[in-house]
Amino acid sequence: MIELVLGGARSGKSRHAESVIRSCPGPWTYIATGRAWDEEMAERIALHRADRGDGWVTVEEPVDLPGALEKAEGQPVLVDCLTLWLTNLLLENHDIATATDALMQIMERRMAPLVLVGNEVGLGIVPENALARRFRDEAGRLHQRVAAKADRVVLCVAGIPMTIRRDA
Amino acid sequence: MIELVLGGARSGKSRHAESVIRSCPGPWTYIATGRAWDEEMAERIALHRADRGDGWVTVEEPVDLPGALEKAEGQPVLVDCLTLWLTNLLLENHDIATATDALMQIMERRMAPLVLVGNEVGLGIVPENALARRFRDEAGRLHQRVAAKADRVVLCVAGIPMTIRRDA
Amino acid sequence: MIELVLGGARSGKSRHAESVIRSCPGPWTYIATGRAWDEEMAERIALHRADRGDGWVTVEEPVDLPGALEKAEGQPVLVDCLTLWLTNLLLENHDIATATDALMQIMERRMAPLVLVGNEVGLGIVPENALARRFRDEAGRLHQRVAAKADRVVLCVAGIPMTIRRDA
Repeated sequence: MIELVLGGARSGKSRHAESVIRSCPGPWTYIATGRAWDEEMAERIALHRADRGDGWVTVEEPVDLPGALEKAEGQPVLVDCLTLWLTNLLLENHDIATATDALMQIMERRMAPLVLVGNEVGLGIVPENALARRFRDEAGRLHQRVAAKADRVVLCVAGIPMTIRRDA
Repeated sequence: MIELVLGGARSGKSRHAESVIRSCPGPWTYIATGRAWDEEMAERIALHRADRGDGWVTVEEPVDLPGALEKAEGQPVLVDCLTLWLTNLLLENHDIATATDALMQIMERRMAPLVLVGNEVGLGIVPENALARRFRDEAGRLHQRVAAKADRVVLCVAGIPMTIRRDA
Repeated sequence: MIELVLGGARSGKSRHAESVIRSCPGPWTYIATGRAWDEEMAERIALHRADRGDGWVTVEEPVDLPGALEKAEGQPVLVDCLTLWLTNLLLENHDIATATDALMQIMERRMAPLVLVGNEVGLGIVPENALARRFRDEAGRLHQRVAAKADRVVLCVAGIPMTIRRDA
């Protein structure tokens, strides 16, 4: 079972994703892709960790997400989130297509439950900043590819998970 | 019956919210939370009022929304909108958590129909402006709390109200 | 059959719209409304054309969309996209209400399949730029009017077309 959980800022994405993984027998692995670039980011990461509670093995992996998933094979895994992973790939000049291909291969082989969280960022006005435009395009492409390999895709709005695709 | 109506700019939120309240026996109370900071805002408020038509008692209350709701107990009320209320709380340095707690208490006791409108602002690229980022987070938190107390939550897109949660 | 396909950046709107038109007997007309203002835009247009493949008659019409639709009467038509058309109207100071009225009249008379693509841009934070705010409002109004005349309205998220209204 692979689920992609999309949503806007503070839409309840992580909480929903955690509840999906918690419904599986543990131990649960949490792959945190965020880098604490600045204080605001460090605070967000700490807040998320406190919200999460006990019972999680946390793995911090800002770049090699496919590798981290391979190591956690056989365990329920929550990836939080694709957006920060993509940010790191972009800012550190990794090849995004290659990294996404590797993620696709892992997803194809994956048997244990996997939930991936992503920020939907493409529904506002076109950003004036060229890097933000590129990021928005890359995020859209990544979400499309991950969605195509997921058994269920959910969009969270105001804390409510709307199922937008579920395979029988 | 409490309904939360979310949506983007010019998505038909207010029109839908008005039609829900108009289906209840009047008189109807309209709580306008907007402050006419500048000409553009004054114009938007006047336009909304003209669109609304007759039969409404308008109450202007930019900050004490819980108090205004208490005074209108027993009447169908439309709150337009949570987003401007939150803007006023933020810009005038009120404690948002305390104000939201007071709103939650009123919602719990509320018997007469209540429809609250909010702008969904969290689905674009992360804003560069720190105040905008904080606003976006606070709006997400507020919508989650209001949604949890509502009987029905609707997301308007292109004038179409999509029901995203409805309690039996 | 008239369908409005909305969605964010790289959400799979064009691909979905093309598949709807391809399911009709050809030849198919593609009305491209984009102007290649700069290299980035020229690249996007070329990419879309390459993705589209064979079997399409491409008409480039950045401003007179109603006229182009009239000429293509009787053939399945894909309009890609309303957002670029609106951008051109706005930047070249055309009267948007008049142009939209003309589009509505064509849609009312239209018998052959028509699919119109539009970018949903109203779900982010209010832009600081006044032109962007006006554009966002105009786009919302245009989508509401087109949606009201469509038989089906779809919102694409991560490549998944969510039907948000379908007439029997």
